[in-house]
Amino acid sequence: MDLKSSLLAAPGPQQRRAIAKTITLLESTRADHRAQADALLTELLPHTGQSFRLGISGVPGVGKSTFIEALGLDLIARGHRVAVLAIDPSSSISGGSILGDKTRMEQLSVQPQAYIRPSPSSGTLGGVAAKTREAMLVCEAAGFDVVIVETVGVGQSETAVAGMTDMFILLQLPNAGDDLQAIKKGVMELADLVVINKADLDRDAATRAQAQITSALRILGQHGHPGHAQHDATLWHAQVLQLSALKAEGIDKFWQAVTRFRNLQEASGRLAARRRQQALAWMWERIESGLKQAFRQHPEIRARLPEMTKQVEQGTLAASTAARQLLQAMGAGFPPA
Amino acid sequence: MDLKSSLLAAPGPQQRRAIAKTITLLESTRADHRAQADALLTELLPHTGQSFRLGISGVPGVGKSTFIEALGLDLIARGHRVAVLAIDPSSSISGGSILGDKTRMEQLSVQPQAYIRPSPSSGTLGGVAAKTREAMLVCEAAGFDVVIVETVGVGQSETAVAGMTDMFILLQLPNAGDDLQAIKKGVMELADLVVINKADLDRDAATRAQAQITSALRILGQHGHPGHAQHDATLWHAQVLQLSALKAEGIDKFWQAVTRFRNLQEASGRLAARRRQQALAWMWERIESGLKQAFRQHPEIRARLPEMTKQVEQGTLAASTAARQLLQAMGAGFPPA
Repeated sequence: MDLKSSLLAAPGPQQRRAIAKTITLLESTRADHRAQADALLTELLPHTGQSFRLGISGVPGVGKSTFIEALGLDLIARGHRVAVLAIDPSSSISGGSILGDKTRMEQLSVQPQAYIRPSPSSGTLGGVAAKTREAMLVCEAAGFDVVIVETVGVGQSETAVAGMTDMFILLQLPNAGDDLQAIKKGVMELADLVVINKADLDRDAATRAQAQITSALRILGQHGHPGHAQHDATLWHAQVLQLSALKAEGIDKFWQAVTRFRNLQEASGRLAARRRQQALAWMWERIESGLKQAFRQHPEIRARLPEMTKQVEQGTLAASTAARQLLQAMGAGFPPA
Repeated sequence: MDLKSSLLAAPGPQQRRAIAKTITLLESTRADHRAQADALLTELLPHTGQSFRLGISGVPGVGKSTFIEALGLDLIARGHRVAVLAIDPSSSISGGSILGDKTRMEQLSVQPQAYIRPSPSSGTLGGVAAKTREAMLVCEAAGFDVVIVETVGVGQSETAVAGMTDMFILLQLPNAGDDLQAIKKGVMELADLVVINKADLDRDAATRAQAQITSALRILGQHGHPGHAQHDATLWHAQVLQLSALKAEGIDKFWQAVTRFRNLQEASGRLAARRRQQALAWMWERIESGLKQAFRQHPEIRARLPEMTKQVEQGTLAASTAARQLLQAMGAGFPPA
């Protein structure tokens, strides 16, 4: 059987191998692999989009793996098939990956109804995110109906994950002050749901954090969308839940909240609109990244950029003049900016 | 006299006309004007960089014009020459400009030692910012030793202004809650100095706001620069001042703070480093903007983009595949991303 047929066939070891093989093909940098992958992806597209895509982020130590394992096992018990992907922008530096160590999700990883794939381990954040998006489509074509994309809370990776999922969940620890950090980095306002994990360790602190974050979300939400009708019943308002992933307490309440969100978003058309917007943003992100790469690789630019960069730094050439001259050096089709 | 000689000559009506003429040339979209402007700019560069560049932002109603007028008059009385430029990303929509109405700074605008120029009224934020940066260089060549770049607190214009000035000042009103908005938008952490204007209206509120913002700045500063030595005496820590621009109260304390900041930054080399970094960031911003413009104007792209955009939105073409195919359509030098 070819890759496509194996992917679309019944779950089992052969499908699992086909998923791995396809994702490896998508991650290849060889031009012929890339062309093959693009053709396959286009054929798979009609079979994608049926899953619910959950993004999960939180600082190291917040308990992401424990939470995802507890959630994944719970969902499988309810009859779902769960794929877990990861975006780790640091993996190209460290050589490892946040999900490379599969023993982190010992019980989930051995489930036939689960598929766990570590972060692509090379490339820019944009490149890693693009590969993860494509892997998500492959998992969807193979019939996984819940896809979880995990990221560690560093840099811009939260924005990338929120930009490829239907619902973005931020995990927090039950101590105050963290909310300001999340607000500062613009992550809090991405969250459709905030989960205070390890709530069993300090109930009082968790309840205080819940109140603080709820109030922060209200302020961020109000100002962020001034045009919103305040009493639109189809509109989801970001919520804060407490749970303990380690004790598997609160997972059912969590999934109820996810289901309410999903139903609201589907009924109001916001789910489809969010996906359309994400696809366009993804296309433009890849275009801009490709343009910049072509610029840097152009022989004329490679020859002139170092000297002009030096002149701009030294203040003997205006930055905008340098930019115009370099763009002109790219040749036809590159008029002055 | 040619433009350059008039600009570099003694202050007076002729120099003033030369400044206006040069900035108009810089703002022109005609290719021949642009080439002329680039040549002139390169000749002027050795005469630039001697001013102190102040960025000032705040929401509408915070009293920016009143503050800049009071500050400008005070500086002129101390023997300075003051240029005031503006970045108003909304001016291309409204047709107006935050500084278009010169009666807003009635007293300052008639001073021979002041030069006030409204925001360029067309183009993207990046384009408007580039023109304002160039206008700043022209004013410096003409001997203005304080350049103030004003922006209204919307969108990304604060980042643009902070990215072209030596010191970024955020004006706030003396009521609580505003700080969270500024933190949310990432503006607070750009501020080298926060000024609570209209402090005379409610001294208690102003003092509370001062304490709140001071504590927010401390948290943002700590986490933003984890590598910083905590007791580096050459390191400026963002401060919060109260004043009343309308009553011209506190302007001297404000200028003392600016002077302390400037001295520290100059002595530690951070001023020069910041300018080098800004120039490089500016060059790359202009390059990326030019690449994107060339892409959009390419005949092959214009022909194919609408249909491919539709397919991506409808989910019949993967966004990354569309990006690769469009980049290939650009022709030689554009390998797959």
